[in-house]
Amino acid sequence: MTTLDDLPLRDDLVGKTPYGAPQKHVPVALNVNENTHPVPEAVAHDIVARVAAAILTVNRYPDREFTGLRESLADYLGHGLTRDNLWAANGSNEVLQQVLQAFGGPGRSVLGFAPTYSMYSLLADGTGTDWIAGERDADYVLSPETAVAAVRRARPNIVILCSPNNPTGTPLSLETIEAVYDATRYEGSAGIVVVDEAYAEFAPIGTPSALSLLDGRPRLIVSRTMSKAFAFAGARVGYLAADPAVTDALRLVRLPYHLSALTQAAAVAALAHSDEMLAMVDDIRGQRDRIVRELTTLGYTAHRSWSNFVLFGGVDDPHAMFEALLERGILIRDIGIPGHLRVTAGTEAETTAFLEAVASLRASGSAAAE
Amino acid sequence: MTTLDDLPLRDDLVGKTPYGAPQKHVPVALNVNENTHPVPEAVAHDIVARVAAAILTVNRYPDREFTGLRESLADYLGHGLTRDNLWAANGSNEVLQQVLQAFGGPGRSVLGFAPTYSMYSLLADGTGTDWIAGERDADYVLSPETAVAAVRRARPNIVILCSPNNPTGTPLSLETIEAVYDATRYEGSAGIVVVDEAYAEFAPIGTPSALSLLDGRPRLIVSRTMSKAFAFAGARVGYLAADPAVTDALRLVRLPYHLSALTQAAAVAALAHSDEMLAMVDDIRGQRDRIVRELTTLGYTAHRSWSNFVLFGGVDDPHAMFEALLERGILIRDIGIPGHLRVTAGTEAETTAFLEAVASLRASGSAAAE
Repeated sequence: MTTLDDLPLRDDLVGKTPYGAPQKHVPVALNVNENTHPVPEAVAHDIVARVAAAILTVNRYPDREFTGLRESLADYLGHGLTRDNLWAANGSNEVLQQVLQAFGGPGRSVLGFAPTYSMYSLLADGTGTDWIAGERDADYVLSPETAVAAVRRARPNIVILCSPNNPTGTPLSLETIEAVYDATRYEGSAGIVVVDEAYAEFAPIGTPSALSLLDGRPRLIVSRTMSKAFAFAGARVGYLAADPAVTDALRLVRLPYHLSALTQAAAVAALAHSDEMLAMVDDIRGQRDRIVRELTTLGYTAHRSWSNFVLFGGVDDPHAMFEALLERGILIRDIGIPGHLRVTAGTEAETTAFLEAVASLRASGSAAAE
Repeated sequence: MTTLDDLPLRDDLVGKTPYGAPQKHVPVALNVNENTHPVPEAVAHDIVARVAAAILTVNRYPDREFTGLRESLADYLGHGLTRDNLWAANGSNEVLQQVLQAFGGPGRSVLGFAPTYSMYSLLADGTGTDWIAGERDADYVLSPETAVAAVRRARPNIVILCSPNNPTGTPLSLETIEAVYDATRYEGSAGIVVVDEAYAEFAPIGTPSALSLLDGRPRLIVSRTMSKAFAFAGARVGYLAADPAVTDALRLVRLPYHLSALTQAAAVAALAHSDEMLAMVDDIRGQRDRIVRELTTLGYTAHRSWSNFVLFGGVDDPHAMFEALLERGILIRDIGIPGHLRVTAGTEAETTAFLEAVASLRASGSAAAE
């Protein structure tokens, strides 16, 4: 049998294993920060109707400029943005890959602040961009001083700031973003600053977005996704807002017709119902806060979160606790931080199942807090 | 206003312009080799039904392994293939990009035979792979001798053979593919051979596919698309068949969840109706042969084609002829070969509109053959 070792694989891929959060069928899946609420039925009907219309002309290539989708996204984001500020791709991973293809690549570097979203370093690898892992302050906070010091040391071509941060849930201040933007103006060159707001909708109501900083900052990019708050992970729609010159740069690296006609139709329909699609966000915030509260009561260190998940520490043996929960049909995530696990805030019933299982494991001594 | 020049674009992108076949709304669009027949209504209903089912769980990430789709594609291709031999992505451009990411990249090279599909060199650029343009024999044919000589000279890491070739329509023999495969076994290393069969279904019935060569050739990849014969350009589904070790390599470079749940559902539904979806292929072959015949009668050099388009030479002023046809609502393609234009075989009515317009321009002296 032929194996990978028999093929002329690119040297830097030899020995690597693919990205792989387990895709297990379990009653309670709280491992990949999905929105566990299905799309409301009335909205689903509208999505199906728009997709059905798109299928009538699916023999033709889709609108390469996905104009209608960019308009819908601009309307949703507000902040005076127009379609010229918007860009989208098949998930925010593809959006970020395109940003790295345009502004990173061999001989260039991207700085992020660990622990952070694990795809950043994989996307850097995939595009030949050097990945530089900066550090955070206590409790995973990233202060302007710490961030700026790392930028001054590394002089990266790109900085990625995850706001709120995954997998820790930690909020990021606009002050840090502004300071990083200013620090990436170097002698004779400058860097791109990406703020990944994948989970922004789960922040407290009224929290300002990095979108409010875009005006006058052409090197700033704010990326978003419909996977989380919009309950649209299966449809693969990530997007960004930035100066129109940034979207011109992305046109140089995107594959032609990268967004299917079905994707465009489904996303436009969902955005037309953004109020209903986002109605579950309040519930999820409530369940998230409940997880923090109850895990704390149980003796764990549950970290402050502005996202739809909670990182908790003080776990004696994360692998054992992960497996014990899985035996009870509950899938959460071991993200490789010693003594920690991460859980997505699900529906009330899912959250109850998780918390009751943890309490019962705790009582039986098999999920000891340190 | 900020422009591209104000941004820290990657050096090798500076001054480039995006890929851009014009997307104009015209009555008769015969420019990008689409299948101009809409999906049959009964099939469309089934596609909508499957997509509607997928939307019920669109809040969850899609099957990262798109198992059902790989099974459907294996069934469609036959040749003893199973899902382990299959891979798919958002259009064959993405499939080829992933192949270049896995087996090409900086310090590596890819050989193709010009004139050929213009995206190959763009994908090479995008992945930092050196593009080497080999030459063809008379009438754009690629003989085993000519192909092997180019391989021996360049010792490329990847060879891409377009079969039949775009934009010329020229058939490629299995002998040439076998000879290239053998020639890419070098001292101490070997190359990957990709046969791009995007238009394979339009070849004469009974023509053997490179799929028949896969057994025992683990470095051979046969890529296909649902965009052409399947009338599915808007859905963006490209795929390939190869040794399972090749698909393992692609798992290292694909973005997680790169194929949406809607794409997977729509493609599985279309493949369940492959007989009906392919029913128009016979019509298209007939219109293609008619174009060759009538353009020859009108004094042009229409090249032999096994695809759904015809390249014709002997055009005095391609730009003028392109514009004159566009004025009459007919969009064809100037692919940059001096004295030539390319036209897609449309429905009978579209083909008639094209041929009558050419005949009338010819009569008025504004589309002179040389």
